Amino acid sequence: MSRRLLYGMIGGGPGAFIGGVHRIAAALDNEAELVCGSFSSSFEKTAETAKQLYIAPERAYATYQEMIEKESLLPEGERMDFVAIVTPNHLHFEPAKLAMEQGFHVICDKPATFDTAQSVALSKIAKETGMEFALTHTYTGYPMVKQAVQMIKDGAFGKVRKVVVEYPQGWMSTDVENTDNKQAGWRSDPSKSGKAGAVGDIGTHAANLAETITGLSITEVAADVSRMVEGRKLDDDANVLIRFNNGAKGVLHCSQICAGEENDVNIRVWGEKGGLEWHQHEPNSMKVKWLDQPTQIYRTGKEYMSDLAAANTRTPWGHPEGYLEAFANLYNNFISVVRKRIDGATFSEIQSRDFPGIEDGIKGMKFIDAVIESGENNAAWRKI
Amino acid sequence: MSRRLLYGMIGGGPGAFIGGVHRIAAALDNEAELVCGSFSSSFEKTAETAKQLYIAPERAYATYQEMIEKESLLPEGERMDFVAIVTPNHLHFEPAKLAMEQGFHVICDKPATFDTAQSVALSKIAKETGMEFALTHTYTGYPMVKQAVQMIKDGAFGKVRKVVVEYPQGWMSTDVENTDNKQAGWRSDPSKSGKAGAVGDIGTHAANLAETITGLSITEVAADVSRMVEGRKLDDDANVLIRFNNGAKGVLHCSQICAGEENDVNIRVWGEKGGLEWHQHEPNSMKVKWLDQPTQIYRTGKEYMSDLAAANTRTPWGHPEGYLEAFANLYNNFISVVRKRIDGATFSEIQSRDFPGIEDGIKGMKFIDAVIESGENNAAWRKI
Amino acid sequence: MSRRLLYGMIGGGPGAFIGGVHRIAAALDNEAELVCGSFSSSFEKTAETAKQLYIAPERAYATYQEMIEKESLLPEGERMDFVAIVTPNHLHFEPAKLAMEQGFHVICDKPATFDTAQSVALSKIAKETGMEFALTHTYTGYPMVKQAVQMIKDGAFGKVRKVVVEYPQGWMSTDVENTDNKQAGWRSDPSKSGKAGAVGDIGTHAANLAETITGLSITEVAADVSRMVEGRKLDDDANVLIRFNNGAKGVLHCSQICAGEENDVNIRVWGEKGGLEWHQHEPNSMKVKWLDQPTQIYRTGKEYMSDLAAANTRTPWGHPEGYLEAFANLYNNFISVVRKRIDGATFSEIQSRDFPGIEDGIKGMKFIDAVIESGENNAAWRKI
Amino acid sequence: MSRRLLYGMIGGGPGAFIGGVHRIAAALDNEAELVCGSFSSSFEKTAETAKQLYIAPERAYATYQEMIEKESLLPEGERMDFVAIVTPNHLHFEPAKLAMEQGFHVICDKPATFDTAQSVALSKIAKETGMEFALTHTYTGYPMVKQAVQMIKDGAFGKVRKVVVEYPQGWMSTDVENTDNKQAGWRSDPSKSGKAGAVGDIGTHAANLAETITGLSITEVAADVSRMVEGRKLDDDANVLIRFNNGAKGVLHCSQICAGEENDVNIRVWGEKGGLEWHQHEPNSMKVKWLDQPTQIYRTGKEYMSDLAAANTRTPWGHPEGYLEAFANLYNNFISVVRKRIDGATFSEIQSRDFPGIEDGIKGMKFIDAVIESGENNAAWRKI
Repeated sequence: MSRRLLYGMIGGGPGAFIGGVHRIAAALDNEAELVCGSFSSSFEKTAETAKQLYIAPERAYATYQEMIEKESLLPEGERMDFVAIVTPNHLHFEPAKLAMEQGFHVICDKPATFDTAQSVALSKIAKETGMEFALTHTYTGYPMVKQAVQMIKDGAFGKVRKVVVEYPQGWMSTDVENTDNKQAGWRSDPSKSGKAGAVGDIGTHAANLAETITGLSITEVAADVSRMVEGRKLDDDANVLIRFNNGAKGVLHCSQICAGEENDVNIRVWGEKGGLEWHQHEPNSMKVKWLDQPTQIYRTGKEYMSDLAAANTRTPWGHPEGYLEAFANLYNNFISVVRKRIDGATFSEIQSRDFPGIEDGIKGMKFIDAVIESGENNAAWRKI
Repeated sequence: MSRRLLYGMIGGGPGAFIGGVHRIAAALDNEAELVCGSFSSSFEKTAETAKQLYIAPERAYATYQEMIEKESLLPEGERMDFVAIVTPNHLHFEPAKLAMEQGFHVICDKPATFDTAQSVALSKIAKETGMEFALTHTYTGYPMVKQAVQMIKDGAFGKVRKVVVEYPQGWMSTDVENTDNKQAGWRSDPSKSGKAGAVGDIGTHAANLAETITGLSITEVAADVSRMVEGRKLDDDANVLIRFNNGAKGVLHCSQICAGEENDVNIRVWGEKGGLEWHQHEPNSMKVKWLDQPTQIYRTGKEYMSDLAAANTRTPWGHPEGYLEAFANLYNNFISVVRKRIDGATFSEIQSRDFPGIEDGIKGMKFIDAVIESGENNAAWRKI
Repeated sequence: MSRRLLYGMIGGGPGAFIGGVHRIAAALDNEAELVCGSFSSSFEKTAETAKQLYIAPERAYATYQEMIEKESLLPEGERMDFVAIVTPNHLHFEPAKLAMEQGFHVICDKPATFDTAQSVALSKIAKETGMEFALTHTYTGYPMVKQAVQMIKDGAFGKVRKVVVEYPQGWMSTDVENTDNKQAGWRSDPSKSGKAGAVGDIGTHAANLAETITGLSITEVAADVSRMVEGRKLDDDANVLIRFNNGAKGVLHCSQICAGEENDVNIRVWGEKGGLEWHQHEPNSMKVKWLDQPTQIYRTGKEYMSDLAAANTRTPWGHPEGYLEAFANLYNNFISVVRKRIDGATFSEIQSRDFPGIEDGIKGMKFIDAVIESGENNAAWRKI
Repeated sequence: MSRRLLYGMIGGGPGAFIGGVHRIAAALDNEAELVCGSFSSSFEKTAETAKQLYIAPERAYATYQEMIEKESLLPEGERMDFVAIVTPNHLHFEPAKLAMEQGFHVICDKPATFDTAQSVALSKIAKETGMEFALTHTYTGYPMVKQAVQMIKDGAFGKVRKVVVEYPQGWMSTDVENTDNKQAGWRSDPSKSGKAGAVGDIGTHAANLAETITGLSITEVAADVSRMVEGRKLDDDANVLIRFNNGAKGVLHCSQICAGEENDVNIRVWGEKGGLEWHQHEPNSMKVKWLDQPTQIYRTGKEYMSDLAAANTRTPWGHPEGYLEAFANLYNNFISVVRKRIDGATFSEIQSRDFPGIEDGIKGMKFIDAVIESGENNAAWRKI
């Protein structure tokens, strides 16, 4: 098949943040084209967005149901090849379900669903339909994160002993949800965000990053979960003791009330022989530490980087890549798999997928369950 | 006009670096589509590249002349709206000339041309034809550079007194031009690169950055220009004293033999009341220094950033943007002007252009002349 | 009184680390002179050390008892004015007790004593004898820490909400206590170090730093305490959830098995309006963060620093001070109080003491108790 | 000889800066004791300073001549062993001359003298008298600078090709010499400072650092020297092209008008195979760069540091040392040589001296001559 893949988008209308990110990510490598969308619950807004995005008016759909139905009637090469779901958490499950049932692959924002049951159900649907499902845990798309994965997998540091993963934000230090801040609004509304605030929005990113990089699973958490801003309906801060399946221990903390912080999700891992440190704010560098040798600064694009990292890098060293490129890596890797699927490969014939999927989604939802429940029980341990 | 702009590319075939960067930059904001190209002197390679880029086979052209001629016969909306020129330096002038003469706007890699005479001629052609010409001095596309421009223009630091601008690279520390390194090959070949090596390739970036940020002109240079690697045909290192039209002084140095350095073009400017410091390797931060107050760290995307910077930023703070986004800003700003032109505005009706143009190109070529001539005269002063 | 103060030292013989630090700290400001010592349990080693330190042979004492007794018989101005205790933890209490009972002021390394009971007893002795007692929690001696104290006290950031304090070391990543490493030997020996390893050695520093800077008290801990190196007798890693008396929450973690880490005790504090971040590895800088303004970099020695910080700074900005100067600040502040005492002031007449004392010592010991007990109870909460 | 060395000080009275630094540096390692001084041209101030420093009143001398004469009459072990000269530049030569002629070793602040002729004369006197003369180019006392010296000497980076050395300060951005700033006063007064301002005060430090680290000599300079602040009598900014005796080239710039800068003298050196970067503001770290391997961060106190560096380090890694310790290294190394001399070694029997001497002083003065003369001739090249 020699053409760009075609996709449709659910969500991402005026005022949204992550929809635009998905669109840039999909466009970056010239491998996908947005051909239809149901961007908003208001058809007027959907039509307006479609126009801005140069989408044919007839493919601006009032509902995702209509979009999925009508697109499925178009011939291959004209109809969308996959769907991007970028709505708030409570609106992931239904469209993802319908899309897969109608034969469309899905790429979906995180956390996977509103609650764990939905994630499990979605996993079942994915298996039954054989469709591809990608979950956009952006931070694992960075080439330096790939490098970290590879080095730990290769045993560079010996057995992992300790992990500290942090996601400090400060943008909700005041009650912004009571202003016209749309992003804060749905994130602090239990009917849209689910049972968790910061823990769901960013804690899951941190957990996913820690598990992805170490190749381990968090098996147990003891979480001190807080609402620091008066009147807030969901947590805005959590300090969590974590334990891994290999005996490693650590700390995960995430917050929306660390005044003055931006979005510097970061991780430190230590093994028997050394460790690593990576910060999303300077994503092209990683400190690699050793017991007896000077700390090294690994840099994106350099010759010594692993094949996995190199495959997720576009520019030579010294040309900083960022968040959008990391996001585009998720799309790029997803698209390459979808392409193979369209070319005839079955689900099980795909050897590897370099993107998070529904199983990561379930893990994330169970992480939320465990942290919130631990928080409600004065930080008693909860197994995942 | 409600459609993506269409463009063709000259250069950027297999093994090229900057062509791919241009294509990503053009794609990022979904405002332009590559519809044709003459990517290589080998038609086979051009065809192969066209296929990879999902371009219709009939719009893969054997020569740029053919491309410009045939495209000009297509109706608007089908033919390309502008041309991107991404060839080595010696192949900028002729296609740019032809394109503009045939009514196509041009976006061209830097330095503008092979020599100064060509730049001046090109400027004349641009004026006569009324076509838009953008020069891709990437680094001025960074939002933080826009912020620096604005702050100095607003007088935040008082009169500028001193500028240190650096472009240290190390990739040509050995005689890589004698390996199969295509990038090093043409850059160190006087018949393709022109009279300058490092000075033309990266020194011009540094000069452009200094002049753009300060709003000043470099009026005089005294340059110690070297070929540090034996047998190299062009300069690979230059240390330059610079003087500005307001009496400010400074240093510009660029090098391809700073072993271990990547691509960290950086600048420091000091005025009477404070100064700033910006490094391309961490482009989303800028140190702002004051006589009596703590140094501040400005960050891309924050509320206090200027409108000019904000207009060149896609993501909220904490989501690092990089080289490709800076490049895309050049495209985005160029495209918005081309769009107005297509919609009927004349050249002189465009109020402002937020991208470098042919006048910057002439400045760059004259900078090369002055530095190289000074270098050949034991660093005697040369006026620009 | 116009003379240097005279002091004696207990501990600090060959192979010791902290004894030499105390001596440099005492010498730095030319306000104290070491005149006698009982440096080792071996008199031969004591004599050797005395000679190296230019101490009169007759004032090299075989035991601390002998030193205290004989020195007390000398006239003021000849006898020591205070005693520095730099022995391992289990040898703090007895000499401190005897010294104070014999009328000598005491400056003692941390943690205060072998166990909490000893600390409480020592506090009682200090009160009864009216002697001064300083505890060398070095890190609170840094001028930038003083600045942090002052800013938080002044309400610069509003109410403190979250604290993350870390003390990561890697030097005990292998079983160094089974080599000839004297430092590791006693630190991992319960009979010398007490019930805690990393928690006592460095966790107490972290807790002291957090409480000193915030002006708050840690009231509750839930601690995951580990022995990561097989066969080790005491903890080498602890991850601790902490709660403060004002409702703030946070994380404290300390470790001796973070392979590749040195000694970068660091702290981040966030309040309603902003926060701060300080790292001991770069002690002359502190990031000060704000909700709406750029992050600032405070620097030691600058005009905007508080009087408290300025009083603990020796050099102008740009002349980095370090660990020894921080330590010397403790000595300097202790000495200035001792000087007043010798000049006739009573304990209660001293208005303020800018150094940690026995009450900090008790807090530290109770912190150890709570963390270790929590650790033994699967991280159940323990009040302090 | 088993005693502390005794020394006297010339200069360093109330309001001075560097005198206090010398005293701390001398005290730090407990190897020297200040026993006499002529601190000020006002005897009242000298007496006051003597009292503050616990010096016997009879050894507070009205003039340095008196001090040198009277001290020379005292028996060894009571009289001073060496003299520290910490006066402004124009008051170095005479006391140094007299001291050496009277048999006293000298440690002197930089630049060595008021002009080159004095330096040459002093060198002759030193040779004739056989006295030791140390020049306190502080920055070469840092352990990391020693490490840099050793690595380049060992050929770690191959032949040195390029050097960039900077000394940016901002404290004289306004006409502070017209306020009561004593430091600015004499530094900008040609009758006290000599022919150079910034060039003499800090440019010489930069030149000394570059030559010390590379083991090369600067043979030629082309300097753009400015007085940026109106009415200033001496230069406050210089941008200098430099050439070395091995063919390496580079840039040296120093300034007192880089508003917002503190005192971050820094250097970058690149050879054929890699390079290094060191900043005085974070003196315990050094970046070591390689053509093909990740950049390394060398750290003071680590096992991989050279013997030379280790011999100049007091604390284990992670305990930052600073400016005062670097200064103390000069004293410590000077004192160890003086001690050998007192114990009977002749000048030529001393194998090596790990401190700058009068020959460095002459080099510094000739550097000043060349830079100032070049500056007066529109940056024409001048040989050193």
